Amino acid sequence: MGGMQSSTLAPASNREPRTSNPSPNSRLRYDREMPVELDLPAAHSVPGGFLWGATRAGIKASGNPDLALALAPAAASAAAMFTCNRVVAAPIIVGRRHLATTGDRIRAVLVNSGNANCATGQPGIEGCIATCVSVAENFGCIFDEVLPSSTGIIGVPFPAEKVVAAVPALKSATGETPAHAELFARAIMTTDTRVKMASAVVPVTDPESSAQREVTIWGCAKGAGMIGPKLGPPHATMLVYLFTDIAADPAALRSALAAAAEPSFNSISIDGDTSTNDTVLLLASGASGISLTRELTPAFDAALAEVCHSLARQIVADGEGVTHVVTLDVRGAASPQDARLVARAIAHSPLCKTAWSSGDPNWGRLIAAAGYSGANFSPEKTRIWIGAEPVFEYGLRAPAFNEAAAHAAMLQPEYTITIDLGEGPGTCTFLTCDLTVDYVHINADYST
Amino acid sequence: MGGMQSSTLAPASNREPRTSNPSPNSRLRYDREMPVELDLPAAHSVPGGFLWGATRAGIKASGNPDLALALAPAAASAAAMFTCNRVVAAPIIVGRRHLATTGDRIRAVLVNSGNANCATGQPGIEGCIATCVSVAENFGCIFDEVLPSSTGIIGVPFPAEKVVAAVPALKSATGETPAHAELFARAIMTTDTRVKMASAVVPVTDPESSAQREVTIWGCAKGAGMIGPKLGPPHATMLVYLFTDIAADPAALRSALAAAAEPSFNSISIDGDTSTNDTVLLLASGASGISLTRELTPAFDAALAEVCHSLARQIVADGEGVTHVVTLDVRGAASPQDARLVARAIAHSPLCKTAWSSGDPNWGRLIAAAGYSGANFSPEKTRIWIGAEPVFEYGLRAPAFNEAAAHAAMLQPEYTITIDLGEGPGTCTFLTCDLTVDYVHINADYST
Repeated sequence: MGGMQSSTLAPASNREPRTSNPSPNSRLRYDREMPVELDLPAAHSVPGGFLWGATRAGIKASGNPDLALALAPAAASAAAMFTCNRVVAAPIIVGRRHLATTGDRIRAVLVNSGNANCATGQPGIEGCIATCVSVAENFGCIFDEVLPSSTGIIGVPFPAEKVVAAVPALKSATGETPAHAELFARAIMTTDTRVKMASAVVPVTDPESSAQREVTIWGCAKGAGMIGPKLGPPHATMLVYLFTDIAADPAALRSALAAAAEPSFNSISIDGDTSTNDTVLLLASGASGISLTRELTPAFDAALAEVCHSLARQIVADGEGVTHVVTLDVRGAASPQDARLVARAIAHSPLCKTAWSSGDPNWGRLIAAAGYSGANFSPEKTRIWIGAEPVFEYGLRAPAFNEAAAHAAMLQPEYTITIDLGEGPGTCTFLTCDLTVDYVHINADYST
Repeated sequence: MGGMQSSTLAPASNREPRTSNPSPNSRLRYDREMPVELDLPAAHSVPGGFLWGATRAGIKASGNPDLALALAPAAASAAAMFTCNRVVAAPIIVGRRHLATTGDRIRAVLVNSGNANCATGQPGIEGCIATCVSVAENFGCIFDEVLPSSTGIIGVPFPAEKVVAAVPALKSATGETPAHAELFARAIMTTDTRVKMASAVVPVTDPESSAQREVTIWGCAKGAGMIGPKLGPPHATMLVYLFTDIAADPAALRSALAAAAEPSFNSISIDGDTSTNDTVLLLASGASGISLTRELTPAFDAALAEVCHSLARQIVADGEGVTHVVTLDVRGAASPQDARLVARAIAHSPLCKTAWSSGDPNWGRLIAAAGYSGANFSPEKTRIWIGAEPVFEYGLRAPAFNEAAAHAAMLQPEYTITIDLGEGPGTCTFLTCDLTVDYVHINADYST
């Protein structure tokens, strides 16, 4: 079994050098602030068996591309996770139905940005189906093989006619290159300021010929607000599309995706608001000719986990108004559930999040949020560090507490807060961010 | 049994006329933006059997009064509710012990602002006890009869010596007038911008002499941030002191307080952060000579409920950065628990709260938050109104939706959002507020 290579994802633009904000602790790199229009070929790897493209349907007021299409001409096995919100958008309803009808085989993914097609009633359902029919007619498949997705404002009637009118333009816009994949990734963005992509390559040695072959995973994501996962599989809370050329049946993909999503997409939060439209989709084309054998599973799972982790981190780092990414490392909890309760309470505490925005080492807010989290612990056994700085030990301020050093640690764009509850083996690593004036501006802006 | 009178609480200042922000739907009035220094006698009623006062202990950097004392020279029956946070401040630990020791009889309440005496370890406990001993020595009671409270920053060593040094000055500062009570109410403030007081008078006809007598309830509260009640009695999430001259045993007071606190202090939220120090205390001096009989209970309970509701509302209205007070009226839920889940999810949604700050009638955020609340409901049976404007009906935008009218309703400083889930008889009325740039500024301000 081959080990996993470093990602080959490299900046697609000369605006930002390769050194721009690499993910620490990860062999993956991602790009920030690439130009909206792509004029250089992207250097990252994309799997075979897929085509991608995008166009302008005129949904976004900005006139930016807002309709993305991915094709698997020979069909792909699919595994999907959807939001756990009780209020779900039309494309989620339609998409679930299509996956059930086809037995999790997909030939096209159609994503529009700018309108969520949620709380749009029966017209929304019918509009969604009409767009799937349009893709089927233009690209030669049946409409059940089209998985639809939408993201944007809730409750505004879905402009199906605009989408249907734009679908033919996608025929000349699709291709199998990394640049085409990036067009897809850009067209699904809403309040995102950066395109979010990650890839990994798993080298595989052919047991008969000893030839080196490889499986490629490429994924993209969108999401900057209304990001707040809820417990309980299967679900997810943003739009994430993962493509691989491995050959695998839907059941195997489902296991792999569930395992990869839990510590990544299920362990992040920007504002704690769980969306009505969120989708994580993993498609496997089989174009590599390599099957997801039991032997290959650990390497494939590890590569998928890295891609998911990178995309999840990119989502938080590009969160609305975010200036600091904070990893909450909760350990020593009586159970994993308790560790997660503490992490989520801190991640969603407005007082903690505002303190992070200014680097205020007001650790009292951390221990207070832990205290109301519902987790079973005693402050007398608890220790907290901000970065490497001890701030709280066994019920009171750490003797070595150094306010200036803790403040300095919090001025870093990324740092870790460690909470050791001293109770047991439960752990949780959770990625979150600060709450800034810009978040309020972004979400309060309104003019009649 | 006599009915309840209107409150006699009137503005204590000529800065703001009587018409300033009266509580609608309530016969109670409260004052906003009264001057920090009291130079006019307050006109509201206070119960007999108590003295109040305040002084400067030098804990607050501002130099404002930060040490408040209430005395019940003949002792008072007490009922108390404390925070449900697992991390509790030293005065909560000490206060619980004192109430247990004395069988819920209290002669003095000592409150300092500017330091929470939380996460201060054994020195915090000892410092708290030292301040109780000081009150006992100066005012002639035993130290177990002193109930201590603290509010302010967490984790900074408690300056017990400053409090002990200031206690003697309280001897000449206490008195039984409304003006003295207001000094107490002002000295417990931290980030509050307004003093929070309410009173009610219950007229009682003497069954033998037919003489008109009365029971008075007066209360005050502090709290503007770290305000987020959690379910599960007994608890509360701010500092509230209620005084009455009725004669009642602690068990009867406990019942009355629990009933009054649930729809008031337990049904509000500013930021959802549950504090480590919160206390609601009800003291009954018996000075009116009127006992809390079974016959009088409904009138007393109603008066107490109104005082609690008024104080709870004043807390939300003075919340950090608050520009809009929003009442969430959830009805038609399958159960009261489901109604509360929906109310709390909306009240704590950053996306809903930021939309309220600008009057954005983005009702999609309301239905999305309801959707992830955990409550059992169907959007197809649900209707939502902002003020009197229908915005969502049975799964999609209300046919009569008028964006301009909904926006206009949201420009009011106070309005109601009604959510009818169409499932059953469950209801919940919850009071909350918007999330503004000022909230972030207030809680992010930090300078080393």
